[in-house]
Amino acid sequence: MKSIVIHAVKDLRIEDQTPETPGPGQVQITLAVGGICGSDLHYFNHGGFGDIRLKEPMVLGHEVSGHITALGAGVTVLKVGQLVAVSPSRPCHDCIYCKEAMFNQCLNMRFYGSAMPFPHIQGAFRQVLVADATQCAVADGLTAAEAAMAEPLAVCLHAAKRAGPMLGKSVLVTGCGPIGILCILAARRAGADLIVATDLGEFTLGMAKTAGADVTIDMRLNAGVLDDYAKNKGMFDLLFECSGAAQALAGAVKVMRPGGIIMQLGLGGDMSLPVQAMTAKELSLRGSFRFHEEFQTGVSLMQKGLIDVKPFITHSFGLDDAVRAFETAGDRSRAMKAQITFSDAV
Amino acid sequence: MKSIVIHAVKDLRIEDQTPETPGPGQVQITLAVGGICGSDLHYFNHGGFGDIRLKEPMVLGHEVSGHITALGAGVTVLKVGQLVAVSPSRPCHDCIYCKEAMFNQCLNMRFYGSAMPFPHIQGAFRQVLVADATQCAVADGLTAAEAAMAEPLAVCLHAAKRAGPMLGKSVLVTGCGPIGILCILAARRAGADLIVATDLGEFTLGMAKTAGADVTIDMRLNAGVLDDYAKNKGMFDLLFECSGAAQALAGAVKVMRPGGIIMQLGLGGDMSLPVQAMTAKELSLRGSFRFHEEFQTGVSLMQKGLIDVKPFITHSFGLDDAVRAFETAGDRSRAMKAQITFSDAV
Amino acid sequence: MKSIVIHAVKDLRIEDQTPETPGPGQVQITLAVGGICGSDLHYFNHGGFGDIRLKEPMVLGHEVSGHITALGAGVTVLKVGQLVAVSPSRPCHDCIYCKEAMFNQCLNMRFYGSAMPFPHIQGAFRQVLVADATQCAVADGLTAAEAAMAEPLAVCLHAAKRAGPMLGKSVLVTGCGPIGILCILAARRAGADLIVATDLGEFTLGMAKTAGADVTIDMRLNAGVLDDYAKNKGMFDLLFECSGAAQALAGAVKVMRPGGIIMQLGLGGDMSLPVQAMTAKELSLRGSFRFHEEFQTGVSLMQKGLIDVKPFITHSFGLDDAVRAFETAGDRSRAMKAQITFSDAV
Amino acid sequence: MKSIVIHAVKDLRIEDQTPETPGPGQVQITLAVGGICGSDLHYFNHGGFGDIRLKEPMVLGHEVSGHITALGAGVTVLKVGQLVAVSPSRPCHDCIYCKEAMFNQCLNMRFYGSAMPFPHIQGAFRQVLVADATQCAVADGLTAAEAAMAEPLAVCLHAAKRAGPMLGKSVLVTGCGPIGILCILAARRAGADLIVATDLGEFTLGMAKTAGADVTIDMRLNAGVLDDYAKNKGMFDLLFECSGAAQALAGAVKVMRPGGIIMQLGLGGDMSLPVQAMTAKELSLRGSFRFHEEFQTGVSLMQKGLIDVKPFITHSFGLDDAVRAFETAGDRSRAMKAQITFSDAV
Repeated sequence: MKSIVIHAVKDLRIEDQTPETPGPGQVQITLAVGGICGSDLHYFNHGGFGDIRLKEPMVLGHEVSGHITALGAGVTVLKVGQLVAVSPSRPCHDCIYCKEAMFNQCLNMRFYGSAMPFPHIQGAFRQVLVADATQCAVADGLTAAEAAMAEPLAVCLHAAKRAGPMLGKSVLVTGCGPIGILCILAARRAGADLIVATDLGEFTLGMAKTAGADVTIDMRLNAGVLDDYAKNKGMFDLLFECSGAAQALAGAVKVMRPGGIIMQLGLGGDMSLPVQAMTAKELSLRGSFRFHEEFQTGVSLMQKGLIDVKPFITHSFGLDDAVRAFETAGDRSRAMKAQITFSDAV
Repeated sequence: MKSIVIHAVKDLRIEDQTPETPGPGQVQITLAVGGICGSDLHYFNHGGFGDIRLKEPMVLGHEVSGHITALGAGVTVLKVGQLVAVSPSRPCHDCIYCKEAMFNQCLNMRFYGSAMPFPHIQGAFRQVLVADATQCAVADGLTAAEAAMAEPLAVCLHAAKRAGPMLGKSVLVTGCGPIGILCILAARRAGADLIVATDLGEFTLGMAKTAGADVTIDMRLNAGVLDDYAKNKGMFDLLFECSGAAQALAGAVKVMRPGGIIMQLGLGGDMSLPVQAMTAKELSLRGSFRFHEEFQTGVSLMQKGLIDVKPFITHSFGLDDAVRAFETAGDRSRAMKAQITFSDAV
Repeated sequence: MKSIVIHAVKDLRIEDQTPETPGPGQVQITLAVGGICGSDLHYFNHGGFGDIRLKEPMVLGHEVSGHITALGAGVTVLKVGQLVAVSPSRPCHDCIYCKEAMFNQCLNMRFYGSAMPFPHIQGAFRQVLVADATQCAVADGLTAAEAAMAEPLAVCLHAAKRAGPMLGKSVLVTGCGPIGILCILAARRAGADLIVATDLGEFTLGMAKTAGADVTIDMRLNAGVLDDYAKNKGMFDLLFECSGAAQALAGAVKVMRPGGIIMQLGLGGDMSLPVQAMTAKELSLRGSFRFHEEFQTGVSLMQKGLIDVKPFITHSFGLDDAVRAFETAGDRSRAMKAQITFSDAV
Repeated sequence: MKSIVIHAVKDLRIEDQTPETPGPGQVQITLAVGGICGSDLHYFNHGGFGDIRLKEPMVLGHEVSGHITALGAGVTVLKVGQLVAVSPSRPCHDCIYCKEAMFNQCLNMRFYGSAMPFPHIQGAFRQVLVADATQCAVADGLTAAEAAMAEPLAVCLHAAKRAGPMLGKSVLVTGCGPIGILCILAARRAGADLIVATDLGEFTLGMAKTAGADVTIDMRLNAGVLDDYAKNKGMFDLLFECSGAAQALAGAVKVMRPGGIIMQLGLGGDMSLPVQAMTAKELSLRGSFRFHEEFQTGVSLMQKGLIDVKPFITHSFGLDDAVRAFETAGDRSRAMKAQITFSDAV
C-alpha cells in the first residue's frame, strides 16, 4: 500500500508500506479521503513547530475517512463496507487523566501524525489503515470528503463546548482558515446572534460569509472597522482566536465586553499579551486543545444537516499529486480545505 | 379606544376606555397584534390559577406588538411609525433584585395582565397602549404577528439560557403547546443533536415535527416508545418540562441521563415528584420564570431568520371576535397560537 | 472471623465467616471501627427502604477503617500496619458512566452492604476485610474512629462540590443527623458566612451548634423563627436538605432566595413539592448521591485539622454489643454517630 | 482638616483642606485608619503605572475606616459613633454595566485615589471624609485597623469568587504581598486542601506560613522545589497570580494541572506568556478586577472570626509620619500592610 511520508522540510514522499492486519477490537479500513491540516503543513514547510521537530520519517495525516474492509476479533458494532470517519485520538485509557475522562490530556496519547514523542506517532495517510473500532464513527449519509472533516470539526465543537452557551451571544472570530470557518459554523449552530470575522484576505473572508458570518473585516484594508465595536469598553461576549497571532488577540481585547471569554485555538508559541487590559476587563482566556467525544457529535450534526461543511472543501487531489496538494493547501488566497483521495471508491 | 376586559369566568367584554398620553420616556403605540397566552386562558376559563384569583375587572394580554404613534419627552431612540414588540415586563429598577440585575424577580413587578397584586396590573389588550421606551424592541423586517411572538419566545430563550450549552445534546420536551414548540425551536437553534417531543394529541405533535423535533411520541397511544430511551439509566441530557403535569415529569425522570437537567416551565401548583429517583440520578430541577434581556434577543434572532415562529401562529381574529379567539386558543386539537388583530394597519 | 449480618427486621446476628485472602491489587485489613449509617438502620428497623428490600442475609456496614495486615501481589503503595479508611464504593471502571468518570453512577456498582441487586452486595462489618488497594486512603495521624467517618464526610463533600462556591454565602441545613452535621462542617469549611440549621430536637441542634451553625431552630417549638428569613422573598443562597421530609423542603422554599440552590441529600421516596413556587423563584433542586474522589479529600481535610469530626462520634460499642449499638444509633435524642469497634488495636 | 496629597514622584504633602458637609444619603466620617496599597505606592514611587499617570495633585488612599460623626438627610441605617469600613468603589448605578450589576466595570466609576480620568478622582486619606451611606459597612466588633483591611480583602474575595469552588483543591499563590497573603486566607477559608506559596524573600514567605500556606518556596533559593509539582503535567487546580511578573506566571504554567484556572490579580502591563503551553493544557487565565458586594462579605467574615487579618498589619504610623509610612510600606523585607492613623479615637 502507498503512504505519504515526510522526511524533512519539503521532502514529502509516496512510499510503499506493508499493511497491518487488524487485531482484536480493531478494523481494517481502505482509506477514502484525507484532509490536510495546518500541523501537516508545518511539518511539510518547516519540519515542525515550536519545540516539536521531526527527527525521523513520519507518515502524515489525521483527518481521514474510509470504508471498512475487514473486522478483527470481537468487533460487532461495525460492518464491512461501512463508511467511517476515523478519530486520530488514541488515549491510553489508563493514565490519571483518562481515568478522569480528560482523554485529550492523556499522558500516553498516540495522536496520528505527531512528532511529539520519539519514536514519532505515525499518521493515517496510508491506503490501508488499521484502527480500533472505538475510533470509528459510522458516517452513513455523508460523503467520504465530509466524513474526513469530522476531525477539524471536532476541534471546533470542543472549543464551542468549553466556551459555554452561545444562544443570542455576540461572537468574534479572528483568523478564517479551516478552524476559524468551522468555529463560525459551530457558533451559528449554537445560536450566536452576531458573528464578526477578521482575516487578512478576500478569499478566506468570502468563505467566512458563506459560513454565516454577519460581518467580515479585512484587517489589511479596514482594521478601523473593528474598532467601531470598542464603544463602551467593547461588545463581544466571545472570541474564537484562530490565528495564533498576538496582534490579533491584542486587537480583539479592545472590543471584548467586560467578562468576555477568549477561546484560544491558534497555536503561536509564546505571545505578548495585554494582560493588564485583560485583567481590568476581567476577560477569560481559555485554551482549547483537540477533542474527544465531540468527534461523534460532529458526525451526527453533519448527518442531520445541522452543520454543512461541503462549501469549504475547496480542493481534492489524487494520492500521486500529494505534493501539489500540500502546496495548494497552504495557499490561503484560494484554498480552504484541500483533501487527498486515497482510493477510487470515494 | 377598545380594550379586552375579563370580569369573571367566561365573562369577557370589549370595553371603551380613554387612552393615556405618553409621559417623559414613554411612547404611544397603536396596538397591531396581541397573542393569547395560557395565563389569559386561565383567567377566561377559571378566573385565575393556584392562589392567583381575579378580584376586579382586568384588561388581559401581554404578548403584543404595534406601531408607534407618538413620542413622550426625551425619547430619541424610537420613531413614529416603527413597528415594535412591547415587553410586558416592567420591573421597578429599584428593589434589591433589580439592583442585582435579577429583574424577573423584582419585588414590585408590574407585568401586564396579572392579578397577583391588588389592584391588579392591567394588561395590554387595548387599541392604544402607552409604554416605556425601554419596553420596546424595534421589529423592522418582522410582521406584527411575528413581533407579538417575542414574549413567549423570550420565556423559552430564558429557559434555554438557564439550561446551559445545548450543542450536541439530547433534549426531551414534554408538552407541545406554544411554550413547548418554542423550546423546540430554541433547542434546535442552540445546536441540540436529538430532540424528542411528547404530548397527548396529533395536532400539537405535528407542530412539534414542524418545529424540528426528530421524534414525536403520542403518550396516549405509544407511551412505551419513550421507555425505549430508558436503557442504561436513560439518555436525555436535558428536559424542557412544559406540561405542568406531574405525570409527565415523573415519566421523564426514567429516561433522563444521570446528571441531567430538567428545566421546569410548566406551572402545575404542587406536584408529587419521584425525588428519591431524581436524587439517585443526581438530576437538577431548575425553575425558569419569565425573562428579561431575552426579549430583545428573540426579536433579533427572528429578524435574522435564525428562529422562525410563523408556522405556529395558527389563528388570527378581529378584535370584535375576541371571545371566539379565546375559545379557539384553548383547543389544542387545532390551535397553536391564536392572535387578535387590534388595528387595520397590521 | 466475626461479621454482623442482618437476616430480617430486628434480626441482627454476629456470625462466624471465613476470611478471604487478598488477590492481586488487593489488601487484607483487620477492621478497627465501623460506623452505623442511616441505611444500615433502615435494614435493621424496616428491612429496607422504598423499593429496596432485604431478600437474603446480608453483612451490613460501609463506614469502616482498619489496619492492613497483608498485601496482595503488586500492591506497592500501601504497607502492612497502616491505618486506612476504606471506601465502600466499588465501581466497575468499564461501563459508560465509569468511562466518563461518573463513577457514582456506575451501572455495575458493588457498594458495600447494599440490597439493591440480588444477590445482595455484602457489607464491610467483618473483622477481616479484603479490599482493593484503590479503595484505601492512608489515614496517618487520624484515630480509627475518625477514619471511619471518611465515608459520610465524603457524601457531604460531594454535595458541597455540586453546590458550587460557598464563600460568603447564606446556608440553611434541614435535618441535623450525621449527614446534616457534616454538611454544616463542610459549609463552614467552604466559607459560608451564615449557617442556620433546623431539626426537631434539642440534642441534634446542640450538635449543630458545635459543628458551627450560627443559628439553630427547633421546628417543634419555634417554627416561626424560620419565617423571619422569608422577608423580600427569602435570603438563603443554599439549602442542604438532609431530612428527606417533604415538609422540611416545602418550608425551606419560602426562605430561599430567588435563584437559590437546594441540595437534596435526604432520601424520602416520592415527595409532594411546591413546584410552582420553586419555578417562580427559579430555584434549582439538585440531587446528590454518594461520592467518589471526595473520599480521599475528606481524609486529607481531617488530617490537616480543617474538618474535625470527633465531637460527633458520640457512642462506641464492642462488636458483641452490635444490637445495642444499632438500637442506640437510631435514637436522635442522644446519639449522633454510633460506631462499633471490631478489634482491640484501635 | 489634614489630607495626604501626592504632587509628583516622592513629593507627598500633608495639606489642609476644607471638610465637605454630607448631602442627602451621605454621612460624615472622622477617619480612623488608612492602609497603604500597592497603587498608592506606585503614585508615590513612580507617579503612576502603565498608561495611568499623575497629571495634577491628588489625595491618595482607598483602604479606610472611620467613625460616623454626622448624618445627611434621609440616612437611617447608620448611627453617629459607629465604626465603619468605607468602600472606595463608587459606581454610577446608571451605565449599561451598572444596570447589569457589573458594578466594577462601571463606565463612570469614581474609585478613590485614582488618576485614571482627568480631573483625577480624589482619594480618602483625609481626616474628615464625606461618603454615601451605601459605601459604609458597619464594623462592630472589629478594630479600626481591621476594618481598613476590608478593601484589599474584598479584592481577594472577588478573585476567590471568580475562581469557583475551592473545597479540597490544590492552590498555588505566586507573590506574597498583601494581596497574595489575603488570597491565602481566602483559599484556606474556602476549603483549599493544599496551599503552596512562592515569593522572593524570607519575610513575606513567613507571613504566608502564618496565613496558612502548607508549603512556601523562596524562588531565589529553591526554585527547583516548585518543579517537583510538575510531574504528570502538574497538579495545581488553581493559581492566584499576585506578582504581576511574567516569569512567575510562566513558571506556574508548568505545574498547573490540565484544565486548571489562573486568577490574574497582579498588574504587570503587557506580559509575554507561554500561550501554546497554556492552550495545550487547556488552562484558563481569568482576570480579576476590584470587587463590589464582596466588601460587605469580607467585613462579615472578619466579624465572625472566619478570616483573621490582624497578623498582617505590621506597621502603624501617625498622620504626620506619612512619608515614612510610604517608605516603609514598600519594603517587603519587613513590611506587609502599613497603615496610617488619622485620629486619636482609633
